Amino acid sequence: MNREELFAQIKKKKSYLCVGLDTDIEKIPKHLLLQSGSFADHDPLFEFNRQIIDATKDWCVAYKPNLAFYESLGPLGLQSLEKTIRYIPENIFTIADAKRGDIGNTSSMYAKTFFEYYNFDAVTVAPYMGKDSVAPFLEFKNKWAIVLALTSNDGANDFQQSKISNPKSQIPNLYGDVLSTVQQWGTPDNLMFVVGATRADTFAEIRKIVPEHFLLVPGVAAQGGSLADVSKHGMNSQCGLLVNSSRQIIYASAGENFADKAKAEAIKVQREMERYLEEYFSVGGRSR
Amino acid sequence: MNREELFAQIKKKKSYLCVGLDTDIEKIPKHLLLQSGSFADHDPLFEFNRQIIDATKDWCVAYKPNLAFYESLGPLGLQSLEKTIRYIPENIFTIADAKRGDIGNTSSMYAKTFFEYYNFDAVTVAPYMGKDSVAPFLEFKNKWAIVLALTSNDGANDFQQSKISNPKSQIPNLYGDVLSTVQQWGTPDNLMFVVGATRADTFAEIRKIVPEHFLLVPGVAAQGGSLADVSKHGMNSQCGLLVNSSRQIIYASAGENFADKAKAEAIKVQREMERYLEEYFSVGGRSR
Repeated sequence: MNREELFAQIKKKKSYLCVGLDTDIEKIPKHLLLQSGSFADHDPLFEFNRQIIDATKDWCVAYKPNLAFYESLGPLGLQSLEKTIRYIPENIFTIADAKRGDIGNTSSMYAKTFFEYYNFDAVTVAPYMGKDSVAPFLEFKNKWAIVLALTSNDGANDFQQSKISNPKSQIPNLYGDVLSTVQQWGTPDNLMFVVGATRADTFAEIRKIVPEHFLLVPGVAAQGGSLADVSKHGMNSQCGLLVNSSRQIIYASAGENFADKAKAEAIKVQREMERYLEEYFSVGGRSR
Repeated sequence: MNREELFAQIKKKKSYLCVGLDTDIEKIPKHLLLQSGSFADHDPLFEFNRQIIDATKDWCVAYKPNLAFYESLGPLGLQSLEKTIRYIPENIFTIADAKRGDIGNTSSMYAKTFFEYYNFDAVTVAPYMGKDSVAPFLEFKNKWAIVLALTSNDGANDFQQSKISNPKSQIPNLYGDVLSTVQQWGTPDNLMFVVGATRADTFAEIRKIVPEHFLLVPGVAAQGGSLADVSKHGMNSQCGLLVNSSRQIIYASAGENFADKAKAEAIKVQREMERYLEEYFSVGGRSR
């Protein structure tokens, strides 16, 4: 999916919500595990995702499976992932939250895995190993690398905030250098950045370095970030935000009504987003 | 496997060779692909690894499957990985070269995946997201996190070499800060670091920060690093080095004799290592 198509979906749905499919076999409703038959025949991870997708697909513009949760079940978990990605409607943006990054030939292999084998639109990438670890993800038409800049966790203070002696950007920390350096390797059409919602005060500065790029924003709700602040300081003329919510939506209920509750949560977030879209730039009324 | 057991293996085999299982379906000998039957029945990735392991297991102390190459084949590739890790003899150290790192609950899931599901001894971990992304890998008895410090690729110059304003270590670059900060999160019994062989001039400085830790050293041979230099500047009183070789050994021949050629290459490296072990600290004669 390209940038214009993504923006068109945002305008149509009046939403920039990304639903994180952190589908944990330990957390999904118990009734999904009690079906008869083998895991492969009756795949509880996929069944959970299928119902979540059916319930939320009209209110979000992206899904982001977190690879760790699928890998933890070995090859079977990857089968659940494969079924999930095939089930997601074509007009919804898909992100493999994999945080990969390795020497060139290995990053190329990861890029093929996520873009060709699974047909994701985007992959999250760690910048520590530099240009040849990121570049292979930028070589696929209408596919995206989403590079970690400033993450939402406490550990972001350990290195991302380190002061750099000769900063290449207005932000004299490592994450500022990552933004200003990495944005030279791609374009706003194949590159996004991860910026945590827990750092809403930094969005204005970040927008000076990457005015046009989409930002993938984790950390709203469960981690304490504010959707209002992120939207106010982070939006650009093509919205430029994908705000992720995982646990708050998919685990809204542990009962048989989990999909209905997930839908209600997704609608709640979408309505708030609709207000911000109208406030910060008019995109016309959503028909529903 | 704990540190004493690893050192015992190094002394016994007079080798600190790690063989990288970067098993690429495009590069393995063609005769392995031409067997009849399905991939699952006749798994060419596993068959390649099985023959490589049989040929090299007496000359190396570690195997390091590169996850990208298995993931690229989807769930089937992970089955090949699972068979491979089960086939590796118990007394050989196993490293999942996965370069993971995410927020705490996700890193915990990756740790369970590699340490419990696959039963690897170690996982490579990227430090960019800080303490809570690394700590979950340090909570498993006799398991190891191997954290990226200074990698062997060109991209290491982009951020790892950035000068830090208030460095916490004698090395005023990001990778120095990573070494001095991360070593406080674990011990030489559950934490190693990746330092590329292409940076042999830095080993003496690095040893001042992490004198006791094992270092996993990629980049010998194919990437141009010198085993002699790495060994001279990097060894400590328990050897403290695992030097990886992937392509040079496993792709020594593309013919039916690939395993014999791999064995010959592994022996060549082991003999050189035996000389350095004798030169830098006497470990007695290898019986064979």
